[in-house]
Amino acid sequence: MIKSILMLGQSNMAGRGFISDVPPIYNERIQMLRNGRWQLMTEPINVDRPVSGISLAGSFAEAWCHENPSETLGLIPCAEGGSALDDWAIDQSLFKHALSEAKFAMQSSELIGILWHQGESDSFNGNYKVYYKKLLLIIETLREELGAPNIPLIIGGLPDFLGKQGFGQNCKEYEFINKELERFAFNQENCYFVTAKGLTSNPDGIHIDAISQRKFGIRYFQAFSKQEHVLTPLINEEKLVGQLAARKNTKTEKIYIKTLDFSLGKISYDDYLSAVMKINSEE
Amino acid sequence: MIKSILMLGQSNMAGRGFISDVPPIYNERIQMLRNGRWQLMTEPINVDRPVSGISLAGSFAEAWCHENPSETLGLIPCAEGGSALDDWAIDQSLFKHALSEAKFAMQSSELIGILWHQGESDSFNGNYKVYYKKLLLIIETLREELGAPNIPLIIGGLPDFLGKQGFGQNCKEYEFINKELERFAFNQENCYFVTAKGLTSNPDGIHIDAISQRKFGIRYFQAFSKQEHVLTPLINEEKLVGQLAARKNTKTEKIYIKTLDFSLGKISYDDYLSAVMKINSEE
Repeated sequence: MIKSILMLGQSNMAGRGFISDVPPIYNERIQMLRNGRWQLMTEPINVDRPVSGISLAGSFAEAWCHENPSETLGLIPCAEGGSALDDWAIDQSLFKHALSEAKFAMQSSELIGILWHQGESDSFNGNYKVYYKKLLLIIETLREELGAPNIPLIIGGLPDFLGKQGFGQNCKEYEFINKELERFAFNQENCYFVTAKGLTSNPDGIHIDAISQRKFGIRYFQAFSKQEHVLTPLINEEKLVGQLAARKNTKTEKIYIKTLDFSLGKISYDDYLSAVMKINSEE
Repeated sequence: MIKSILMLGQSNMAGRGFISDVPPIYNERIQMLRNGRWQLMTEPINVDRPVSGISLAGSFAEAWCHENPSETLGLIPCAEGGSALDDWAIDQSLFKHALSEAKFAMQSSELIGILWHQGESDSFNGNYKVYYKKLLLIIETLREELGAPNIPLIIGGLPDFLGKQGFGQNCKEYEFINKELERFAFNQENCYFVTAKGLTSNPDGIHIDAISQRKFGIRYFQAFSKQEHVLTPLINEEKLVGQLAARKNTKTEKIYIKTLDFSLGKISYDDYLSAVMKINSEE
Protein backbone atom coordinates (compact mmCIF):
# COMPACT_ATOMS: atom_id res chain seq x y z
CA MET A 1 0.00 0.00 0.00
CA ILE A 2 1.27 3.45 -0.82
CA LYS A 3 2.02 6.04 1.85
CA SER A 4 0.32 9.42 1.90
CA ILE A 5 0.77 12.97 3.17
CA LEU A 6 -1.93 15.55 3.90
CA MET A 7 -1.28 19.18 2.85
CA LEU A 8 -3.11 21.84 4.89
CA GLY A 9 -2.90 25.61 5.13
CA GLN A 10 -3.15 28.62 2.90
CA SER A 11 -1.59 29.77 -0.37
CA ASN A 12 2.06 29.10 0.45
CA MET A 13 1.15 25.48 1.17
CA ALA A 14 -0.99 25.30 -1.98
CA GLY A 15 1.99 26.77 -3.84
CA ARG A 16 2.29 29.90 -5.95
CA GLY A 17 5.83 29.49 -7.31
CA PHE A 18 5.99 30.12 -11.07
CA ILE A 19 6.04 26.78 -12.87
CA SER A 20 8.58 27.91 -15.46
CA ASP A 21 11.14 28.99 -12.84
CA VAL A 22 12.30 25.50 -11.82
CA PRO A 23 12.90 22.14 -13.51
CA PRO A 24 9.68 20.09 -13.35
CA ILE A 25 9.41 17.01 -11.14
CA TYR A 26 8.04 13.86 -12.79
CA ASN A 27 8.33 10.79 -10.66
CA GLU A 28 6.12 7.76 -11.13
CA ARG A 29 6.43 7.07 -7.40
CA ILE A 30 4.76 10.38 -6.53
CA GLN A 31 0.99 10.46 -6.88
CA MET A 32 -1.63 13.08 -6.13
CA LEU A 33 -5.28 12.74 -5.18
CA ARG A 34 -7.80 13.63 -7.90
CA ASN A 35 -11.50 12.83 -7.54
CA GLY A 36 -10.69 10.49 -4.65
CA ARG A 37 -8.16 8.48 -6.69
CA TRP A 38 -4.39 8.58 -7.29
CA GLN A 39 -2.82 10.12 -10.38
CA LEU A 40 0.78 10.66 -11.35
CA MET A 41 1.83 13.92 -9.72
CA THR A 42 2.24 16.93 -11.98
CA GLU A 43 2.60 20.46 -10.64
CA PRO A 44 0.51 22.38 -9.74
CA ILE A 45 -0.65 19.79 -7.22
CA ASN A 46 -3.02 21.93 -5.17
CA VAL A 47 -5.27 23.72 -7.66
CA ASP A 48 -7.28 25.89 -5.29
CA ARG A 49 -6.83 28.90 -7.58
CA PRO A 50 -5.89 29.65 -11.22
CA VAL A 51 -2.57 31.04 -9.95
CA SER A 52 -1.53 27.75 -8.32
CA GLY A 53 2.03 26.76 -8.98
CA ILE A 54 5.07 25.19 -7.37
CA SER A 55 4.58 24.19 -3.74
CA LEU A 56 6.89 22.66 -1.16
CA ALA A 57 5.19 19.29 -1.62
CA GLY A 58 6.98 18.48 -4.88
CA SER A 59 10.52 18.51 -3.52
CA PHE A 60 9.33 17.04 -0.22
CA ALA A 61 7.97 14.05 -2.11
CA GLU A 62 11.02 13.78 -4.35
CA ALA A 63 13.30 13.73 -1.29
CA TRP A 64 11.04 11.13 0.35
CA CYS A 65 11.28 8.92 -2.75
CA HIS A 66 15.05 9.24 -2.71
CA GLU A 67 15.10 7.95 0.88
CA ASN A 68 12.46 5.27 0.24
CA PRO A 69 13.58 3.80 -3.08
CA SER A 70 10.93 1.10 -3.40
CA GLU A 71 7.87 2.95 -2.13
CA THR A 72 5.27 5.36 -3.49
CA LEU A 73 4.00 8.57 -1.90
CA GLY A 74 0.56 10.07 -2.47
CA LEU A 75 -0.08 13.77 -1.87
CA ILE A 76 -3.48 14.93 -0.61
CA PRO A 77 -3.83 18.61 -1.55
CA CYS A 78 -6.26 20.51 0.69
CA ALA A 79 -4.66 23.94 1.13
CA GLU A 80 -6.81 26.97 0.42
CA GLY A 81 -5.51 30.38 -0.64
CA GLY A 82 -6.30 33.25 1.70
CA SER A 83 -7.75 31.07 4.43
CA ALA A 84 -7.52 32.36 7.99
CA LEU A 85 -7.17 29.99 10.94
CA ASP A 86 -10.87 30.47 11.69
CA ASP A 87 -11.67 29.06 8.23
CA TRP A 88 -10.01 25.86 9.45
CA ALA A 89 -12.16 25.61 12.60
CA ILE A 90 -13.57 22.12 13.01
CA ASP A 91 -17.12 23.14 12.08
CA GLN A 92 -16.05 24.84 8.85
CA SER A 93 -16.01 23.51 5.27
CA LEU A 94 -12.23 23.51 4.85
CA PHE A 95 -11.69 21.26 7.85
CA LYS A 96 -14.54 18.93 6.93
CA HIS A 97 -13.50 18.76 3.29
CA ALA A 98 -9.87 18.03 4.13
CA LEU A 99 -11.00 15.28 6.48
CA SER A 100 -13.19 13.83 3.75
CA GLU A 101 -10.35 13.94 1.18
CA ALA A 102 -7.97 12.31 3.65
CA LYS A 103 -10.46 9.52 4.26
CA PHE A 104 -10.81 8.86 0.54
CA ALA A 105 -7.02 8.70 0.32
CA MET A 106 -6.77 6.40 3.34
CA GLN A 107 -8.90 3.78 1.60
CA SER A 108 -5.85 3.03 -0.53
CA SER A 109 -2.92 4.48 1.40
CA GLU A 110 -1.34 4.73 4.80
CA LEU A 111 -1.30 8.32 6.01
CA ILE A 112 2.18 9.04 7.39
CA GLY A 113 2.22 12.77 7.96
CA ILE A 114 0.55 16.17 7.87
CA LEU A 115 2.17 19.31 6.47
CA TRP A 116 0.86 22.65 7.77
CA HIS A 117 1.62 26.16 6.55
CA GLN A 118 -0.76 28.93 7.53
CA GLY A 119 -0.65 32.30 9.23
CA GLU A 120 -0.35 35.11 6.67
CA SER A 121 -4.09 35.74 6.99
CA ASP A 122 -3.68 35.98 10.77
CA SER A 123 -0.66 38.28 10.82
CA PHE A 124 -2.63 41.31 11.97
CA ASN A 125 -5.25 42.46 14.50
CA GLY A 126 -3.47 40.61 17.30
CA ASN A 127 -4.75 37.27 16.00
CA TYR A 128 -1.54 35.65 17.22
CA LYS A 129 -2.84 35.89 20.79
CA VAL A 130 -5.40 33.13 20.19
CA TYR A 131 -3.57 31.25 17.43
CA TYR A 132 -2.10 28.51 19.63
CA LYS A 133 -5.37 27.62 21.31
CA LYS A 134 -7.31 27.55 18.04
CA LEU A 135 -4.67 25.49 16.23
CA LEU A 136 -4.56 23.01 19.09
CA LEU A 137 -8.25 22.22 18.80
CA ILE A 138 -7.94 21.82 15.02
CA ILE A 139 -4.96 19.46 15.25
CA GLU A 140 -6.33 17.44 18.17
CA THR A 141 -9.66 16.95 16.40
CA LEU A 142 -7.98 16.16 13.10
CA ARG A 143 -5.71 13.48 14.59
CA GLU A 144 -8.65 12.00 16.44
CA GLU A 145 -10.99 11.96 13.41
CA LEU A 146 -8.25 10.42 11.27
CA GLY A 147 -7.64 7.76 13.88
CA ALA A 148 -3.98 8.80 13.87
CA PRO A 149 -3.26 10.29 17.31
CA ASN A 150 0.52 10.22 16.89
CA ILE A 151 0.86 11.19 13.25
CA PRO A 152 3.77 13.58 12.66
CA LEU A 153 2.82 17.19 12.00
CA ILE A 154 5.33 19.46 10.26
CA ILE A 155 4.72 23.19 10.72
CA GLY A 156 6.52 25.74 8.60
CA GLY A 157 7.25 29.29 9.68
CA LEU A 158 6.27 32.46 7.83
CA PRO A 159 8.95 34.05 5.64
CA ASP A 160 10.75 37.28 6.49
CA PHE A 161 9.74 39.05 3.30
CA LEU A 162 6.25 39.53 4.78
CA GLY A 163 4.99 42.86 6.12
CA LYS A 164 6.94 44.89 3.59
CA GLN A 165 5.45 45.21 0.11
CA GLY A 166 2.69 44.27 -2.34
CA PHE A 167 0.09 41.81 -1.07
CA GLY A 168 2.36 40.99 1.87
CA GLN A 169 2.30 44.51 3.30
CA ASN A 170 -0.48 43.90 5.80
CA CYS A 171 1.17 40.89 7.44
CA LYS A 172 2.82 43.13 10.04
CA GLU A 173 2.58 40.62 12.89
CA TYR A 174 4.07 37.61 11.12
CA GLU A 175 6.89 37.34 13.67
CA PHE A 176 4.36 36.95 16.47
CA ILE A 177 2.62 34.20 14.51
CA ASN A 178 6.01 32.53 14.01
CA LYS A 179 6.59 32.51 17.75
CA GLU A 180 3.24 30.78 18.26
CA LEU A 181 3.94 28.24 15.51
CA GLU A 182 7.33 27.48 17.07
CA ARG A 183 5.89 27.26 20.56
CA PHE A 184 3.21 24.89 19.25
CA ALA A 185 5.76 22.60 17.62
CA PHE A 186 8.04 22.68 20.67
CA ASN A 187 5.21 21.79 23.06
CA GLN A 188 3.17 19.27 21.12
CA GLU A 189 4.03 15.62 20.61
CA ASN A 190 5.24 14.50 17.17
CA CYS A 191 5.29 18.03 15.94
CA TYR A 192 8.27 19.74 14.26
CA PHE A 193 8.95 23.32 13.25
CA VAL A 194 10.63 24.33 9.99
CA THR A 195 12.11 27.78 9.54
CA ALA A 196 11.31 29.91 6.50
CA LYS A 197 14.45 32.01 6.97
CA GLY A 198 16.11 33.12 3.77
CA LEU A 199 13.21 32.21 1.48
CA THR A 200 12.43 34.72 -1.25
CA SER A 201 9.14 35.88 -2.75
CA ASN A 202 7.29 36.39 -5.99
CA PRO A 203 6.94 40.06 -7.01
CA ASP A 204 3.66 40.09 -5.05
CA GLY A 205 5.55 40.17 -1.73
CA ILE A 206 3.44 37.43 -0.15
CA HIS A 207 4.09 34.19 -2.03
CA ILE A 208 7.21 32.06 -1.74
CA ASP A 209 8.86 31.78 -5.15
CA ALA A 210 9.43 28.49 -6.94
CA ILE A 211 13.10 27.97 -6.09
CA SER A 212 12.46 28.77 -2.42
CA GLN A 213 9.51 26.34 -2.38
CA ARG A 214 11.90 23.62 -3.56
CA LYS A 215 14.23 24.47 -0.65
CA PHE A 216 11.34 24.68 1.81
CA GLY A 217 10.22 21.19 0.75
CA ILE A 218 13.68 19.84 1.53
CA ARG A 219 13.55 21.46 4.97
CA TYR A 220 10.08 20.00 5.62
CA PHE A 221 11.43 16.61 4.61
CA GLN A 222 14.42 16.97 6.91
CA ALA A 223 12.08 17.66 9.83
CA PHE A 224 9.83 14.76 8.83
CA SER A 225 12.61 12.29 8.21
CA LYS A 226 14.82 13.10 11.21
CA GLN A 227 11.92 13.96 13.50
CA GLU A 228 13.60 17.17 14.53
CA HIS A 229 13.03 20.90 14.31
CA VAL A 230 14.76 22.69 11.46
CA LEU A 231 15.58 26.08 12.95
CA THR A 232 18.12 27.30 10.43
CA PRO A 233 18.38 26.84 6.66
CA LEU A 234 20.15 23.58 5.74
CA ILE A 235 23.69 24.33 4.63
CA ASN A 236 23.45 21.97 1.67
CA GLU A 237 19.86 22.65 0.57
CA GLU A 238 20.71 24.22 -2.78
CA LYS A 239 22.89 21.25 -3.60
CA LEU A 240 20.12 18.85 -2.53
CA VAL A 241 17.59 20.65 -4.74
CA GLY A 242 20.02 20.36 -7.63
CA GLN A 243 20.66 16.67 -6.97
CA LEU A 244 16.96 15.87 -6.93
CA ALA A 245 16.41 17.80 -10.15
CA ALA A 246 19.23 15.85 -11.79
CA ARG A 247 17.53 12.46 -11.34
CA LYS A 248 17.12 10.65 -14.66
CA ASN A 249 13.49 10.03 -15.63
CA THR A 250 12.27 6.45 -16.03
CA LYS A 251 10.72 5.21 -19.28
CA THR A 252 7.24 5.55 -17.82
CA GLU A 253 7.95 9.16 -16.88
CA LYS A 254 9.43 9.96 -20.29
CA ILE A 255 6.38 8.52 -22.05
CA TYR A 256 4.11 10.43 -19.67
CA ILE A 257 5.86 13.69 -20.58
CA LYS A 258 5.54 12.97 -24.31
CA THR A 259 1.86 12.16 -23.82
CA LEU A 260 1.34 15.55 -22.18
CA ASP A 261 3.10 17.21 -25.12
CA PHE A 262 0.93 15.40 -27.65
CA SER A 263 -2.30 16.01 -25.73
CA LEU A 264 -1.49 19.71 -25.58
CA GLY A 265 -0.88 19.82 -29.32
CA LYS A 266 2.85 20.49 -29.01
CA ILE A 267 3.92 17.50 -31.13
CA SER A 268 2.21 15.54 -33.91
CA TYR A 269 0.86 12.02 -33.50
CA ASP A 270 3.64 10.63 -35.71
CA ASP A 271 6.30 12.40 -33.65
CA TYR A 272 4.62 11.13 -30.49
CA LEU A 273 4.62 7.54 -31.72
CA SER A 274 8.25 7.63 -32.78
CA ALA A 275 9.27 9.28 -29.52
CA VAL A 276 7.52 6.52 -27.56
CA MET A 277 9.13 3.86 -29.74
CA LYS A 278 12.54 5.42 -29.17
CA ILE A 279 12.00 5.57 -25.38
CA ASN A 280 10.90 1.94 -25.31
CA SER A 281 13.99 0.85 -27.24
CA GLU A 282 16.39 2.54 -24.81
CA GLU A 283 18.55 0.45 -22.53
CA MET B 1 -28.92 31.01 -2.28
CA ILE B 2 -26.95 30.28 -5.41
CA LYS B 3 -27.91 27.52 -7.84
CA SER B 4 -25.51 24.71 -8.72
CA ILE B 5 -24.77 22.16 -11.44
CA LEU B 6 -22.96 18.83 -11.08
CA MET B 7 -20.49 17.84 -13.84
CA LEU B 8 -19.95 14.09 -14.29
CA GLY B 9 -18.23 11.96 -16.91
CA GLN B 10 -14.83 11.59 -18.48
CA SER B 11 -12.32 13.86 -20.20
CA ASN B 12 -14.68 15.64 -22.60
CA MET B 13 -16.80 16.70 -19.62
CA ALA B 14 -13.69 17.69 -17.66
CA GLY B 15 -12.59 19.65 -20.73
CA ARG B 16 -9.45 19.45 -22.84
CA GLY B 17 -9.95 22.41 -25.18
CA PHE B 18 -6.82 24.55 -25.44
CA ILE B 19 -7.23 27.60 -23.20
CA SER B 20 -5.62 29.98 -25.68
CA ASP B 21 -8.01 29.03 -28.52
CA VAL B 22 -11.06 30.93 -27.24
CA PRO B 23 -11.76 34.19 -25.40
CA PRO B 24 -11.77 33.54 -21.64
CA ILE B 25 -14.96 33.69 -19.61
CA TYR B 26 -14.86 35.77 -16.43
CA ASN B 27 -18.22 36.26 -14.81
CA GLU B 28 -18.62 37.07 -11.14
CA ARG B 29 -21.94 35.21 -11.20
CA ILE B 30 -20.23 31.94 -12.13
CA GLN B 31 -18.52 30.14 -9.27
CA MET B 32 -16.73 26.81 -9.02
CA LEU B 33 -16.27 24.47 -6.08
CA ARG B 34 -12.78 24.39 -4.54
CA ASN B 35 -12.10 22.66 -1.22
CA GLY B 36 -15.83 22.53 -0.54
CA ARG B 37 -16.28 26.28 -1.04
CA TRP B 38 -17.17 28.61 -3.93
CA GLN B 39 -14.60 30.56 -5.89
CA LEU B 40 -14.92 32.78 -8.93
CA MET B 41 -14.85 30.47 -11.95
CA THR B 42 -11.69 30.48 -14.02
CA GLU B 43 -10.97 27.86 -16.66
CA PRO B 44 -9.88 25.11 -16.37
CA ILE B 45 -12.72 24.31 -14.00
CA ASN B 46 -12.27 20.55 -13.71
CA VAL B 47 -8.59 19.98 -12.97
CA ASP B 48 -8.49 16.19 -12.99
CA ARG B 49 -5.32 16.24 -15.10
CA PRO B 50 -2.51 18.65 -16.04
CA VAL B 51 -3.99 18.81 -19.57
CA SER B 52 -7.36 20.14 -18.36
CA GLY B 53 -8.71 23.00 -20.40
CA ILE B 54 -11.90 24.43 -21.84
CA SER B 55 -15.01 22.38 -21.07
CA LEU B 56 -18.65 22.80 -22.02
CA ALA B 57 -19.44 24.07 -18.51
CA GLY B 58 -18.05 27.55 -19.14
CA SER B 59 -20.40 28.54 -21.96
CA PHE B 60 -23.26 26.59 -20.34
CA ALA B 61 -22.88 28.76 -17.24
CA GLU B 62 -22.46 31.95 -19.25
CA ALA B 63 -25.67 31.22 -21.16
CA TRP B 64 -27.44 30.42 -17.89
CA CYS B 65 -26.33 33.76 -16.42
CA HIS B 66 -27.61 35.54 -19.51
CA GLU B 67 -31.04 33.99 -18.97
CA ASN B 68 -30.98 34.48 -15.18
CA PRO B 69 -29.64 38.03 -14.86
CA SER B 70 -29.83 38.34 -11.09
CA GLU B 71 -28.68 34.89 -10.03
CA THR B 72 -25.40 33.04 -9.49
CA LEU B 73 -24.45 29.57 -10.70
CA GLY B 74 -21.94 27.29 -9.00
CA LEU B 75 -20.19 24.51 -10.93
CA ILE B 76 -19.27 21.27 -9.18
CA PRO B 77 -16.48 19.64 -11.22
CA CYS B 78 -16.27 15.86 -10.74
CA ALA B 79 -15.40 14.53 -14.20
CA GLU B 80 -12.45 12.17 -14.45
CA GLY B 81 -10.33 11.65 -17.57
CA GLY B 82 -10.31 8.13 -18.99
CA SER B 83 -12.99 6.81 -16.66
CA ALA B 84 -15.13 3.93 -17.91
CA LEU B 85 -18.74 3.53 -16.86
CA ASP B 86 -17.68 0.83 -14.40
CA ASP B 87 -15.49 3.41 -12.66
CA TRP B 88 -18.72 5.28 -11.94
CA ALA B 89 -20.45 2.28 -10.37
CA ILE B 90 -22.07 3.19 -7.08
CA ASP B 91 -19.51 1.34 -4.96
CA GLN B 92 -16.56 3.05 -6.65
CA SER B 93 -14.52 6.11 -5.56
CA LEU B 94 -15.64 8.38 -8.42
CA PHE B 95 -19.30 7.99 -7.58
CA LYS B 96 -18.77 8.36 -3.85
CA HIS B 97 -16.46 11.34 -4.28
CA ALA B 98 -18.86 13.12 -6.64
CA LEU B 99 -21.68 12.55 -4.17
CA SER B 100 -19.53 13.95 -1.39
CA GLU B 101 -18.58 17.04 -3.44
CA ALA B 102 -22.22 17.61 -4.37
CA LYS B 103 -23.21 17.45 -0.73
CA PHE B 104 -20.59 20.03 0.22
CA ALA B 105 -21.95 22.25 -2.55
CA MET B 106 -25.56 21.74 -1.47
CA GLN B 107 -24.80 23.18 1.96
CA SER B 108 -24.72 26.58 0.28
CA SER B 109 -26.54 26.07 -3.03
CA GLU B 110 -29.59 24.58 -4.63
CA LEU B 111 -28.62 21.81 -7.06
CA ILE B 112 -30.60 22.37 -10.28
CA GLY B 113 -29.08 19.95 -12.76
CA ILE B 114 -26.59 17.24 -13.65
CA LEU B 115 -24.47 17.26 -16.81
CA TRP B 116 -23.21 13.87 -18.04
CA HIS B 117 -20.71 13.11 -20.80
CA GLN B 118 -19.11 9.69 -20.84
CA GLY B 119 -18.66 6.79 -23.20
CA GLU B 120 -15.35 7.03 -25.06
CA SER B 121 -13.85 4.50 -22.63
CA ASP B 122 -16.76 2.14 -23.36
CA SER B 123 -16.71 2.44 -27.16
CA PHE B 124 -15.25 -1.03 -27.68
CA ASN B 125 -15.60 -4.67 -26.59
CA GLY B 126 -19.38 -4.51 -26.96
CA ASN B 127 -19.66 -2.49 -23.75
CA TYR B 128 -22.66 -0.69 -25.25
CA LYS B 129 -24.77 -3.80 -24.65
CA VAL B 130 -24.81 -3.24 -20.89
CA TYR B 131 -24.38 0.55 -20.88
CA TYR B 132 -28.06 1.43 -20.40
CA LYS B 133 -28.58 -0.88 -17.46
CA LYS B 134 -25.40 0.24 -15.70
CA LEU B 135 -26.08 3.94 -16.26
CA LEU B 136 -29.62 3.53 -14.95
CA LEU B 137 -28.42 2.21 -11.60
CA ILE B 138 -25.88 5.02 -11.32
CA ILE B 139 -28.41 7.76 -12.09
CA GLU B 140 -31.19 6.29 -9.95
CA THR B 141 -28.85 5.94 -6.99
CA LEU B 142 -27.39 9.39 -7.52
CA ARG B 143 -30.79 11.10 -7.63
CA GLU B 144 -31.86 9.19 -4.54
CA GLU B 145 -28.71 9.93 -2.55
CA LEU B 146 -28.90 13.60 -3.49
CA GLY B 147 -32.54 13.74 -2.42
CA ALA B 148 -33.37 15.08 -5.88
CA PRO B 149 -35.46 12.43 -7.65
CA ASN B 150 -36.60 14.74 -10.46
CA ILE B 151 -33.43 16.69 -11.06
CA PRO B 152 -32.81 17.30 -14.79
CA LEU B 153 -30.04 15.22 -16.33
CA ILE B 154 -28.46 16.40 -19.58
CA ILE B 155 -26.62 13.71 -21.54
CA GLY B 156 -24.34 14.62 -24.42
CA GLY B 157 -23.54 12.33 -27.33
CA LEU B 158 -20.11 11.25 -28.48
CA PRO B 159 -18.60 13.18 -31.40
CA ASP B 160 -18.22 11.79 -34.92
CA PHE B 161 -14.46 12.32 -35.04
CA LEU B 162 -14.02 9.27 -32.78
CA GLY B 163 -12.84 5.90 -34.08
CA LYS B 164 -10.57 7.42 -36.67
CA GLN B 165 -7.19 8.72 -35.50
CA GLY B 166 -4.78 9.36 -32.62
CA PHE B 167 -6.06 8.53 -29.15
CA GLY B 168 -9.61 8.28 -30.56
CA GLN B 169 -8.81 5.37 -32.87
CA ASN B 170 -9.99 2.63 -30.56
CA CYS B 171 -13.44 4.13 -29.99
CA LYS B 172 -14.87 2.07 -32.87
CA GLU B 173 -18.26 1.53 -31.28
CA TYR B 174 -19.05 5.11 -30.35
CA GLU B 175 -22.20 5.11 -32.50
CA PHE B 176 -23.61 2.18 -30.52
CA ILE B 177 -22.92 4.06 -27.30
CA ASN B 178 -24.67 7.09 -28.77
CA LYS B 179 -27.77 5.01 -29.45
CA GLU B 180 -27.80 3.88 -25.83
CA LEU B 181 -27.31 7.43 -24.53
CA GLU B 182 -30.17 8.63 -26.73
CA ARG B 183 -32.41 5.75 -25.74
CA PHE B 184 -31.67 6.48 -22.10
CA ALA B 185 -32.57 10.15 -22.45
CA PHE B 186 -35.71 9.34 -24.45
CA ASN B 187 -36.96 6.81 -21.89
CA GLN B 188 -36.03 8.38 -18.58
CA GLU B 189 -37.90 11.20 -16.87
CA ASN B 190 -36.31 14.66 -16.81
CA CYS B 191 -33.51 13.53 -19.04
CA TYR B 192 -32.46 15.23 -22.29
CA PHE B 193 -30.06 14.24 -25.04
CA VAL B 194 -27.67 16.66 -26.74
CA THR B 195 -26.08 15.82 -30.06
CA ALA B 196 -22.32 16.17 -30.59
CA LYS B 197 -22.75 16.37 -34.38
CA GLY B 198 -20.34 18.68 -36.13
CA LEU B 199 -18.00 19.13 -33.17
CA THR B 200 -14.29 19.07 -33.99
CA SER B 201 -11.31 17.66 -32.12
CA ASN B 202 -7.89 18.49 -30.82
CA PRO B 203 -5.02 16.93 -32.83
CA ASP B 204 -5.28 13.92 -30.49
CA GLY B 205 -8.47 12.75 -32.23
CA ILE B 206 -10.32 12.13 -28.96
CA HIS B 207 -10.85 15.47 -27.25
CA ILE B 208 -13.37 18.12 -28.27
CA ASP B 209 -11.53 21.34 -29.12
CA ALA B 210 -12.12 24.61 -27.31
CA ILE B 211 -14.43 26.30 -29.83
CA SER B 212 -16.57 23.16 -30.10
CA GLN B 213 -16.76 22.92 -26.31
CA ARG B 214 -18.19 26.45 -26.30
CA LYS B 215 -20.85 25.32 -28.82
CA PHE B 216 -21.52 22.11 -26.93
CA GLY B 217 -22.14 24.13 -23.76
CA ILE B 218 -24.74 26.21 -25.60
CA ARG B 219 -26.46 23.01 -26.77
CA TYR B 220 -26.41 21.59 -23.24
CA PHE B 221 -27.94 24.83 -22.01
CA GLN B 222 -30.64 24.73 -24.71
CA ALA B 223 -31.61 21.23 -23.55
CA PHE B 224 -31.55 22.30 -19.90
CA SER B 225 -33.42 25.54 -20.38
CA LYS B 226 -36.10 24.33 -22.83
CA GLN B 227 -36.31 20.84 -21.29
CA GLU B 228 -36.02 19.30 -24.72
CA HIS B 229 -33.68 17.05 -26.67
CA VAL B 230 -31.20 18.81 -28.95
CA LEU B 231 -30.85 16.40 -31.85
CA THR B 232 -29.25 18.70 -34.41
CA PRO B 233 -26.72 21.50 -34.04
CA LEU B 234 -28.40 24.83 -33.22
CA ILE B 235 -28.47 27.00 -36.32
CA ASN B 236 -27.37 30.09 -34.40
CA GLU B 237 -24.84 28.53 -32.03
CA GLU B 238 -21.78 30.27 -33.46
CA LYS B 239 -23.54 33.59 -33.14
CA LEU B 240 -24.58 32.76 -29.57
CA VAL B 241 -21.00 31.86 -28.64
CA GLY B 242 -19.86 35.16 -30.10
CA GLN B 243 -22.55 37.13 -28.26
CA LEU B 244 -21.62 35.60 -24.92
CA ALA B 245 -17.93 36.30 -25.52
CA ALA B 246 -18.76 39.93 -26.29
CA ARG B 247 -20.25 40.62 -22.86
CA LYS B 248 -18.52 43.56 -21.14
CA ASN B 249 -16.76 42.61 -17.90
CA THR B 250 -17.88 44.20 -14.64
CA LYS B 251 -15.49 46.17 -12.43
CA THR B 252 -15.11 43.19 -10.10
CA GLU B 253 -14.18 40.97 -13.03
CA LYS B 254 -11.72 43.50 -14.44
CA ILE B 255 -10.00 43.82 -11.07
CA TYR B 256 -9.95 40.02 -10.73
CA ILE B 257 -8.18 39.73 -14.10
CA LYS B 258 -5.61 42.37 -13.12
CA THR B 259 -5.03 40.55 -9.83
CA LEU B 260 -4.28 37.33 -11.72
CA ASP B 261 -1.84 39.25 -13.94
CA PHE B 262 -0.06 40.73 -10.94
CA SER B 263 0.01 37.45 -9.00
CA LEU B 264 1.55 35.73 -12.01
CA GLY B 265 4.25 38.40 -12.27
CA LYS B 266 2.96 39.79 -15.58
CA ILE B 267 2.58 43.38 -14.31
CA SER B 268 4.32 45.36 -11.55
CA TYR B 269 2.64 46.34 -8.29
CA ASP B 270 2.55 49.99 -9.35
CA ASP B 271 0.93 49.08 -12.67
CA TYR B 272 -1.52 46.87 -10.80
CA LEU B 273 -2.47 49.65 -8.39
CA SER B 274 -2.97 52.22 -11.14
CA ALA B 275 -4.99 49.73 -13.22
CA VAL B 276 -7.28 49.07 -10.25
CA MET B 277 -7.62 52.80 -9.61
CA LYS B 278 -8.52 53.37 -13.25
CA ILE B 279 -11.11 50.56 -13.19
CA ASN B 280 -12.68 51.94 -10.03
CA SER B 281 -12.93 55.42 -11.53
CA GLU B 282 -14.78 54.19 -14.65
CA GLU B 283 -18.43 55.06 -15.09
